[in-house]
Amino acid sequence: MSEYVDAALQEPSVGVVDRRTYTFADDAPFRLTGGATLAPVTLAYETYGALNAARDNAVLVAHALTGDSHVAGRYSESDPKPGWWELMVGPGKPIDTDRFFVICSNVLGGCMGSTGPAAADPATGRPYGLDFPVVTIADMVRAQRRLVEHLGVTRLLAAVGGSMGGMQVLEWAVRYPDRVAVAVPLATTARHSALNIAFNEIARQAILADPNFNGGDYYGHSAPEACGLGQGPRMGLAVARMIGHVTYLSDEAMRQKFGRRLQDRDAFSFDLDADLPDFQVESYLRYQGRKFVERFDANSFLYVTKAADYFDLAEQHGQGSLTHALSKARARFLLVSFTSDWLYPTAASRELVTAMKKNGLDVSFLEITADCGHDAFLLRNQRLSGLVRDFLRHAHDDVQQGNL
Amino acid sequence: MSEYVDAALQEPSVGVVDRRTYTFADDAPFRLTGGATLAPVTLAYETYGALNAARDNAVLVAHALTGDSHVAGRYSESDPKPGWWELMVGPGKPIDTDRFFVICSNVLGGCMGSTGPAAADPATGRPYGLDFPVVTIADMVRAQRRLVEHLGVTRLLAAVGGSMGGMQVLEWAVRYPDRVAVAVPLATTARHSALNIAFNEIARQAILADPNFNGGDYYGHSAPEACGLGQGPRMGLAVARMIGHVTYLSDEAMRQKFGRRLQDRDAFSFDLDADLPDFQVESYLRYQGRKFVERFDANSFLYVTKAADYFDLAEQHGQGSLTHALSKARARFLLVSFTSDWLYPTAASRELVTAMKKNGLDVSFLEITADCGHDAFLLRNQRLSGLVRDFLRHAHDDVQQGNL
Repeated sequence: MSEYVDAALQEPSVGVVDRRTYTFADDAPFRLTGGATLAPVTLAYETYGALNAARDNAVLVAHALTGDSHVAGRYSESDPKPGWWELMVGPGKPIDTDRFFVICSNVLGGCMGSTGPAAADPATGRPYGLDFPVVTIADMVRAQRRLVEHLGVTRLLAAVGGSMGGMQVLEWAVRYPDRVAVAVPLATTARHSALNIAFNEIARQAILADPNFNGGDYYGHSAPEACGLGQGPRMGLAVARMIGHVTYLSDEAMRQKFGRRLQDRDAFSFDLDADLPDFQVESYLRYQGRKFVERFDANSFLYVTKAADYFDLAEQHGQGSLTHALSKARARFLLVSFTSDWLYPTAASRELVTAMKKNGLDVSFLEITADCGHDAFLLRNQRLSGLVRDFLRHAHDDVQQGNL
Repeated sequence: MSEYVDAALQEPSVGVVDRRTYTFADDAPFRLTGGATLAPVTLAYETYGALNAARDNAVLVAHALTGDSHVAGRYSESDPKPGWWELMVGPGKPIDTDRFFVICSNVLGGCMGSTGPAAADPATGRPYGLDFPVVTIADMVRAQRRLVEHLGVTRLLAAVGGSMGGMQVLEWAVRYPDRVAVAVPLATTARHSALNIAFNEIARQAILADPNFNGGDYYGHSAPEACGLGQGPRMGLAVARMIGHVTYLSDEAMRQKFGRRLQDRDAFSFDLDADLPDFQVESYLRYQGRKFVERFDANSFLYVTKAADYFDLAEQHGQGSLTHALSKARARFLLVSFTSDWLYPTAASRELVTAMKKNGLDVSFLEITADCGHDAFLLRNQRLSGLVRDFLRHAHDDVQQGNL
């Protein structure tokens, strides 16, 4: 996802937060969907607000492809950048930390503190690289469940997330129907389409094509904690990120944001080798690519995109039938799609809503008119904010009154 | 574009054809839009049918991004593959070689026989590489005009082309209003949008990121005629082509063609390093990438995509006004768009139609319902065939009767 910061909405904030880790290796190794086992498993996570005495106010936020556990707040008073959903999470905000105990963990396979390909393989003491086993959305969710239990929560009030976060929310609702009262999958899908897979595959190929990828073994002698950031297939990863960015915006958003405006020049360069691009949109993409390689590990990119591609709620829980898969769910649902989202278009949400309704589930759905493409769920949107705020408050009231 | 062959429609055909070249260096050097000069300039071209005595039956076909002069027929009796628009061009076909004298040349900057970055720079005797000057759609058209004149044609009956070929058709109509009776721009646009530029830029970045690109100097010691095929940044060029292929198909076309079907396997590989992909769509993209590097020069890819990005009929002929730009045109127009084309959507054609009508031009426009995305103009389509057939026949009748 893109990172947008709206300064005006940063306050009130959860303030200075810290990232913690939870490691489980105490019992049997964690067996993954693909058959491999993993031990130890560490999840990096953050929490905001407090768990109440009834332990019924926990809201799990699941992050998207390249997100992390840092949903809200800052790591220090001087930290210039708040968490990625600062707009939505904080005191008095839609996911209200005065009311709710908010939990977010970096996904399994990620590179922001959770066990992933940059972590040390206990068998060798060196980073796993491509020896890291392929993980699925289900594996991410199963690890989250361990964390949630560790935090003293038996049943979540809500699981909330957009994009790949929404897939995790769906997986929670179907896999653990007794452990989540309400589910809020935003701008997401029950399965990756051929188009979704195609873009991810091209991005992966760009990474694999970079000779500095070196079969995933590019961490050098740096400590595993350094996580491969800035190392390895920088060019390939930058290209991969550029592809992602195009899919997060809409045709219309790009037209408004960039059009055919030139970047710091009055005329075309007529130079294919120019360091400075011709068009603003080229400059934007190059900048996004450069910035991304400083914060994300290329191997992790391969693993999380694969997890998203593999996700198929119907196949994995319903023998091919989405209705059958969702017959296992009991949560109350709120789904939101955005008109200009061509990554996970409204039809993908509607398909979920139809299958939910066939199962008699309590489901609310809104398609929000927005020009900004898939990124819309991360941007300021009064309708989204109001919906989520009301939905969570009512859910909590109903849970407290024993009605949910 | 993709290459589709419909065996059932290959006959009747123009039969065995050959590619010729025309070189002009006799007078002043060819001055390009960007200010550089180029000499000599060679265009590879093919013709089918015969120029009539009145010299009023010439139809210029302009090819798309990675096309070439080989529109129809085969290079030998045993040649397995006909030209790229065999469906449309041939005896009795919509562009009827029994009636019309069909001309197509490889674009300036291309790599299929015309002067481009793989050609020998007279100054050094070595391939130009990135020393080749940036060319524009206007430059391509200006070179074509020289060829058309050389072939004895003062005024074309028609200029016809899809995608980047359509841009050339528009340029012909505006630049040489006296030299083209009718113009048929298919699935095209008056300018590249930010989204179009974004995809091209990512593709170029993938090539530039490949260390085998070597600043465009990768031709080694092979003869320039070898054109760099199979040399240089193979991985980067393959990724570039994969990006293109996604934009040529539609979400729906990919859903129908591939869905989530696995490639020669019953279950996921759970292996990120697997030589064999999981999904059919991944296999398709990898195959298209591999195939492309055997037939296309990476430097040429940079130049032709840049030409398409630079194209802006309104800016370059109308001081920002498309209506003003098209006030220079006098041709009769037929425009066609396809419902699922998201590269150059119907809105792009409509904008042209509106500006043409404001100028009182005779313009026919049809949006054809098609699931197959931008590639639709290359595929069998009865409506497209019928439209083009009738339009060209009437145009020829009207020209012969002195009405056009």
